[in-house]
Amino acid sequence: MVRTADAETRRMQVADALLRVVARDGLAGAKLVNVADEAGVSVGLVQSYFRSKTDLLRFAVEALLDRTERRVDDVRSVRPLREALRQLAELLLPLDDDRRDEAAVWLAFLPVTLTDPEMAAMHRAAIDRQLAGVDRAFAASRTLGELTRKVDPALEAMALTAFLDGLSNYMVTMPHVFDAESARRMLRTYLDRIFEGDE
Amino acid sequence: MVRTADAETRRMQVADALLRVVARDGLAGAKLVNVADEAGVSVGLVQSYFRSKTDLLRFAVEALLDRTERRVDDVRSVRPLREALRQLAELLLPLDDDRRDEAAVWLAFLPVTLTDPEMAAMHRAAIDRQLAGVDRAFAASRTLGELTRKVDPALEAMALTAFLDGLSNYMVTMPHVFDAESARRMLRTYLDRIFEGDE
Repeated sequence: MVRTADAETRRMQVADALLRVVARDGLAGAKLVNVADEAGVSVGLVQSYFRSKTDLLRFAVEALLDRTERRVDDVRSVRPLREALRQLAELLLPLDDDRRDEAAVWLAFLPVTLTDPEMAAMHRAAIDRQLAGVDRAFAASRTLGELTRKVDPALEAMALTAFLDGLSNYMVTMPHVFDAESARRMLRTYLDRIFEGDE
Repeated sequence: MVRTADAETRRMQVADALLRVVARDGLAGAKLVNVADEAGVSVGLVQSYFRSKTDLLRFAVEALLDRTERRVDDVRSVRPLREALRQLAELLLPLDDDRRDEAAVWLAFLPVTLTDPEMAAMHRAAIDRQLAGVDRAFAASRTLGELTRKVDPALEAMALTAFLDGLSNYMVTMPHVFDAESARRMLRTYLDRIFEGDE
């Protein structure tokens, strides 16, 4: 393995550990030494990735956005688009342990975007990208005749994004009520109502 | 004015100031002296309400839940229930400055519920109450024949609650995209799809 690949592997290892620690202890409770312990690496190595609380959060959010991006790439070619949308939407919900940790980090990130301009810009860029992708999917499924109902693709993209974010937050904060099975049923009902014909 | 009324007035004054300061500076940036300045009272008085960061957040969340409760009481008797639901849903969205500050405090509160059992219990109690109220409204509007579509009231209550929370968060974090007019349109579309007849 060449040096660059080693560095990338270690970076991922630290990112994975960081996501678990922030999910478990919160942003306030995340300590460098715990991240190093969790990753099985030295504190010095962890420090080389982030020197401040802001760095730590940026690194964690970049790691979860990277992960999401890779998962999204896998379903881009699914047809019909309604099914692609359902699969994409499920990717954004904490239906497994990794996603649960990521959703907890996302929850810690949101309030920081209100007071930190750099975090606000990261948030805006990620959500704008998501909105544009979902908007295109709704518009394309109208064009392909999959979606016969009259919809405003941009507004539907915003509403679906809001619904998924709220649902994801509740799945993390109240998992005994908002469990995986309920979340899948809510998502199915939500998409069914958009896609059912009104003519 | 009797002593008790004075105390209540001062408490509300401090609560209002606290909501504004947390909304503006975040939970991390909220200082006792700023809250006192904002409220036009002494630091000592503010200290009598909260002695720690946890106390401060609990006080802020209690204040916003109190405010919401009072607003909700005003629309309980509205008929048809579909219109009551729309009005209740709008009350939960940051459509004015006060609600915007409250939504920012709510956003700061959510991640803390993951690591603080007392905050988790406050969150669960507030959301359980909301879910029960919305569940009853959906069930009643089925019984009254306002809602002819077959729905699961408990699941609809969860989905609407998730949608409103996500939408509220985006209205605070990305107000240039999720503006008041878009939010009202999304909410109208959302309720229309539930209430439109399928028979």
